[in-house]
Amino acid sequence: MVNKVKLNDSNSTRVPAGALQQQLSSIFRGVGTPEDDAKVAAKVLVSASVRGVDTHGVANVVGYSKNVEDGVYTVPQKTEVLSESETTALVSGGNGIGLVSAYRAMEMAIEKAKKQGLGMVSIKDGHHVGMVAYYAMMALEHDMIGMSMTTAAPAVRPALGAKKMMGTNPIGFAAPAGEERDFVLDMATSTVASGKVALARRIGVPIPAGWAVTSEGEAITEPPAGENETWALNPLGNNREQGSHKGYGLSVMVDILCGVLSGGGFSSQLARGENMSWVMAIDIGRFRDIDEFKSMMDDMIRELHATPTLPGEDRVMVAGDPEADATDDRLANGVPVENGQYAAIREQAVELGVEVVI
Amino acid sequence: MVNKVKLNDSNSTRVPAGALQQQLSSIFRGVGTPEDDAKVAAKVLVSASVRGVDTHGVANVVGYSKNVEDGVYTVPQKTEVLSESETTALVSGGNGIGLVSAYRAMEMAIEKAKKQGLGMVSIKDGHHVGMVAYYAMMALEHDMIGMSMTTAAPAVRPALGAKKMMGTNPIGFAAPAGEERDFVLDMATSTVASGKVALARRIGVPIPAGWAVTSEGEAITEPPAGENETWALNPLGNNREQGSHKGYGLSVMVDILCGVLSGGGFSSQLARGENMSWVMAIDIGRFRDIDEFKSMMDDMIRELHATPTLPGEDRVMVAGDPEADATDDRLANGVPVENGQYAAIREQAVELGVEVVI
Repeated sequence: MVNKVKLNDSNSTRVPAGALQQQLSSIFRGVGTPEDDAKVAAKVLVSASVRGVDTHGVANVVGYSKNVEDGVYTVPQKTEVLSESETTALVSGGNGIGLVSAYRAMEMAIEKAKKQGLGMVSIKDGHHVGMVAYYAMMALEHDMIGMSMTTAAPAVRPALGAKKMMGTNPIGFAAPAGEERDFVLDMATSTVASGKVALARRIGVPIPAGWAVTSEGEAITEPPAGENETWALNPLGNNREQGSHKGYGLSVMVDILCGVLSGGGFSSQLARGENMSWVMAIDIGRFRDIDEFKSMMDDMIRELHATPTLPGEDRVMVAGDPEADATDDRLANGVPVENGQYAAIREQAVELGVEVVI
Repeated sequence: MVNKVKLNDSNSTRVPAGALQQQLSSIFRGVGTPEDDAKVAAKVLVSASVRGVDTHGVANVVGYSKNVEDGVYTVPQKTEVLSESETTALVSGGNGIGLVSAYRAMEMAIEKAKKQGLGMVSIKDGHHVGMVAYYAMMALEHDMIGMSMTTAAPAVRPALGAKKMMGTNPIGFAAPAGEERDFVLDMATSTVASGKVALARRIGVPIPAGWAVTSEGEAITEPPAGENETWALNPLGNNREQGSHKGYGLSVMVDILCGVLSGGGFSSQLARGENMSWVMAIDIGRFRDIDEFKSMMDDMIRELHATPTLPGEDRVMVAGDPEADATDDRLANGVPVENGQYAAIREQAVELGVEVVI
C-alpha cells in the first residue's frame, strides 16, 4: 500500500530542525521576504517535516521561493483586512506566500478569541498554505480549539459526477489534551490527497481501486501522470453505497467557508496555485475550566487507545499520533530530508547567494 | 440497495403538514410540555418528515412522549445557562426533550451572532435532537451560516479498532443560496446511520459490505438484530486504505465540541438516549455583502449541477437536493406517514385524551 516513502540512511540525510529553520528562513529572505515573514514561512514548513508530513515539508521551500522569484507570489506581502468585526475578519492574502497569510490570519483569530471567546477569519487572494492543521494547532498553546480549512483548484469529482470540480479541500482541527498528546486532525475530504497518487507514480506502485476514477467512472489502479481531465480523485466515501455524498458535502462546506465567504471563489473558479482559506479559534475557558476540559480529553484519548484492535493491527491510534511519533523521533535524531530534495534546497541557497547551513 | 422504505398509497397515509404540526403539538402538550416547547418539538419533527427524513420524523413523537411519561425526559424543561460570554454559552438541556434544548441553544447562538458576528453554544444534559441539520438550517432565514453536531452512545468503531466507541456523531451545515436551493449537509460520520441497518433488517434485505463489521473485523451483510457488542458500524471510509481514519477523526471532533467542551461526556461515557450537542451561527454580513455571497453560492451550485455524471446516473446533486425535492412534493401533496406509525400516533393521542386531528 502506498503510504509514504520510507526515508532511511541511504536515501536521506538527517538535519537538525534548527538548521532547517535557519536555512529556509535565509532562502525566503534571499528572495526578498521580510525577516519576520521568512521566519514564519520556514517555521510552518519545518513543522510539517518534523511531524513527518514530508509532502508539505521543507522541500517546498524551493518551489515557493521560485514562485517569489517568478512573481507568482508577491513579497513583501501585506495581509490586508477588507472587513472586520470584533470576532470576524475577511482578509486578502495579497497574493503573497500562503503560509504567511494563513499564519497572520490565525494570529488575528486567536487575538479575537482572547477578547471575545471566538475568532474567525476567511482569507482570499491566497496561495498554498502547506499542512493545513498547522494553523489549527496554533490555538493549542492558548488553551483554545483551532480549526482551519483550505481549498484548491479541482482534483476531486462530486458524488455521481464524472469530472473534477473541487479541490482536495482539507480540514484541520486541533484540541488540547493534558497529559496525553493533543488531538490533531488533518484530512483531505477526498479519499486520498493528490500527493499520494503522485507518490505512487514516482515510486512505481499501483494505487488501490477507490482512490481515483476515469471520466467513464472506471477505477484507476495505475497512477496517472499528473493532473488532467481524464481522471479525478474520489470524494471520501468513494461511491454512493459507501457515502461519497459525505466526502463531497464536506468538500463543498470547505469551499463555502474559504471561497464563498471570502469572495475569493470556489474550487472550480480557482487557477492551479490559488488557494482560499479559513481559520477559527475557540477559547475553551469561556465554556468550562480548562483543566477539566483537558482531563476529559485525556480520559477520552486513553479509552480510544485502549480499544481492542482488529485482527492483525498493532494499536488504535488517535488523530495526531503518527505525527507525534514522528516528532519524537525527528526532534531527537534530526529531520530526514530525501537526498534529492536536500541537494535542491542547498542548490537554491547557493543560487541565491545565501549561506548554506545544512 | 437499502435506502429508505418507499412510501406509497398502500403502505402510508398522506397528511397535511399543518395537521401533523397540530397533532404532535397536542401530544407533547398532553404529556405536560408547555405550549411553546410543544410547538417547537412538533416543528422539528414535522420538518424532518416534510424533508423526507422519515427516520427522524413525526413517528418519533410516540417514543419521545412516552419518554416524558416515563420520566426519562423532564418537562417542563429549563435550558439553564451554566456559563456565558457575548459569543458563547454552555447550557444544560435539563434532561428535557432534546429537540427543544437544541432549538433554544441555536436561538441563543443566532442572537449572539446578530450582536457579535458569531455565536456558539455547547449543550450538556441532553437527549435526542432528531434531524441534526434542523438547527443549522435555523440560521438560514437570518442570512447566516449554521452548523450543528450531536453525539450518542457508541455504535461506531475507531479506525483499526474492533469495538464500538463513538456514536454516529452527525454533522449539520447550512448556508443560504439566492435563487438556488440552500446548501444543507446532514451526515453521520459513520459510513451509514444506525437507522439504515435497522431498516434493512425490518424489510429483510442484506446490507452492503463496508457498513458494519463483527468484532473479528469481518464484513457483515446480514443486518444484526439490534445493538450489541458483537458488531460495530464502520467510520466513514470503512478501512485504512479508503480513509477510515477520516470518518473516525471527524466523529471524535464532534465528541470534543459536543461532549468535552460541554463537560457532558464523550460517546463512550454516554448511556443510550443521552446526547450532547453543539451549534454555531456565523453572520455572513460581517464578512461580505449577503447578496454577493448568495450569488456566488448560486454560481457554485449551478456548476455542480452541470457536472457530467458517471455512466448510468441521472444528475449530480448538491447537499440538500433530495430533501428539497421531498419538501416540494410533501408540502403540495401531504406528508406520507407509514400506516403502522400513523396508527401509533393516533393511538398515543387517544391514550392521552387529546383531540385526534390526523
